[in-house]
Amino acid sequence: MGDDAAVLVPERGCHDVVTTDALVEDVHFRRAWSTPQDIGHKALAVTVSDLAAMGATPRGVLLSLALPAHLPLADFDGLADGFLALASTMRVPLVGGNITRSPGPLMLDVTAIGSVRPRRLLTRAGARPGDRIFVTGALGAAAAGLAMLQANAQSADDDGASACRLAYQRPTAQLRTGIIVANNSVATTCMDLSDGLADAVRHIAEASGCGADIDAASVPVHAGARAWAAAHGADPITFAVAGGEDYELVFTVPPRRRRRFLTAIHQSGNVPVTDIGVCTKAPEVVLVRDGQRAPLQGGFTHF
Amino acid sequence: MGDDAAVLVPERGCHDVVTTDALVEDVHFRRAWSTPQDIGHKALAVTVSDLAAMGATPRGVLLSLALPAHLPLADFDGLADGFLALASTMRVPLVGGNITRSPGPLMLDVTAIGSVRPRRLLTRAGARPGDRIFVTGALGAAAAGLAMLQANAQSADDDGASACRLAYQRPTAQLRTGIIVANNSVATTCMDLSDGLADAVRHIAEASGCGADIDAASVPVHAGARAWAAAHGADPITFAVAGGEDYELVFTVPPRRRRRFLTAIHQSGNVPVTDIGVCTKAPEVVLVRDGQRAPLQGGFTHF
Repeated sequence: MGDDAAVLVPERGCHDVVTTDALVEDVHFRRAWSTPQDIGHKALAVTVSDLAAMGATPRGVLLSLALPAHLPLADFDGLADGFLALASTMRVPLVGGNITRSPGPLMLDVTAIGSVRPRRLLTRAGARPGDRIFVTGALGAAAAGLAMLQANAQSADDDGASACRLAYQRPTAQLRTGIIVANNSVATTCMDLSDGLADAVRHIAEASGCGADIDAASVPVHAGARAWAAAHGADPITFAVAGGEDYELVFTVPPRRRRRFLTAIHQSGNVPVTDIGVCTKAPEVVLVRDGQRAPLQGGFTHF
Repeated sequence: MGDDAAVLVPERGCHDVVTTDALVEDVHFRRAWSTPQDIGHKALAVTVSDLAAMGATPRGVLLSLALPAHLPLADFDGLADGFLALASTMRVPLVGGNITRSPGPLMLDVTAIGSVRPRRLLTRAGARPGDRIFVTGALGAAAAGLAMLQANAQSADDDGASACRLAYQRPTAQLRTGIIVANNSVATTCMDLSDGLADAVRHIAEASGCGADIDAASVPVHAGARAWAAAHGADPITFAVAGGEDYELVFTVPPRRRRRFLTAIHQSGNVPVTDIGVCTKAPEVVLVRDGQRAPLQGGFTHF
């Protein structure tokens, strides 16, 4: 900071991993639905989630802001506070950035740089038929939270609903889980669920040259998402599988490493993890439900 | 590409250098003044210029685009073409990025990652009283080009004017010069002129704890800028010193390394370089003109 560019000392024996992600007002968030702190937090979380999915440890982040002329100074402070509080929790320094005026929406562009040992790197390619498919957490919470905010559903104030809104507003990147699974070499692939489980499984299958059978009964649906879907005539499993922005991780794990995988997950803070299916030789990605097989549906789009 | 994040293999014995810069429609460019190819080119050039100023060799770039819904596909292709053509010339791969919709202006956010040996790194701090101050190229061209476009000065179609508009629309990052000067350890500081010479010299003086005397008669004013300023009743030297977006480099060089510096510049393709002044013990940054001393004025702001 203060020079034209930031200098980072590479981790010995590691490769650099780098990713960028943007949050654009009225595309990815609305100021009516998220506080400035939420927006700053989320911009960092969604970018670091991509490092988590590679098993990489973040070494530095850059924040590029485009600020509307009439943004209150307190809102700018809030954005910075939300971003820096999460950066501090993750122990990742803000090493550079840019601030410019925007004649339109508020925009945040975050770049994260991390390190990973080449043989520990988790990618989307490498799943083999027979590998089990695991997912962290419970799905659909962020999609339900967004739906509640869109519907301005003030009434639904039970715990499940608040958790859903929070999942949308302040997502958590599964950084520790990604790093520990990578360091234990127990997964063949990994991806985050930024665009939903269906999207992630299809990407892994395509990159790995295999298919997948997802067992509908095993999909962990968030209680708040289940209640929201049921109250709105939607199928909870379809809703959870298609819903984006959960930022959980999906892993494929060879059966012989299953036990070591679960031990690694336990070490990473005992996050919930669920076996939801298996990689197949046939290239189709299928949802298996009550013995019926149907293509795994769902392409996530923002509001 | 295709995974959540890009992987880069670090250069042995080098540090990583990383920088981000944004171009926002109607803040940094107008689509009436620049072709899509120009905009793509410029977004990359201005970001890589920050690596040049550190003496770093670019290893990869990321492009984050926010595209208005009604942007013609041909314009998107043009942006990509302009960006990729320059990336190819610079031999720097596009390793990642992001594309999103913008409900407002077109925005391009570019992150560049480079490598430099720690002892070769050029920063803003390190100038000593007595160091000579050198600048590459001729100044004021981009500012004059912008002024011509703002004035819609169609008539001024001599070579000087075309060169000025081109300097604004398609700037050149002095990458080779920055790297070769750094590798020869012949400069104590370096900065690019993104915000003008006056701004750069003040930053170097502040970071180094010294002052500077700039000799007005030595400042290389671009011929087109000189003509534009004269025709509009402006002082050409003031115009050139304050004008931003030239993306030339300013170096401070100890007198004993002057010859080796000029040899390095010669190696870098014989770019024009001019001795414009000296670092001083007194902390003021001064423009010396006909024996008169006045503060070096000029803070660049975009249109």
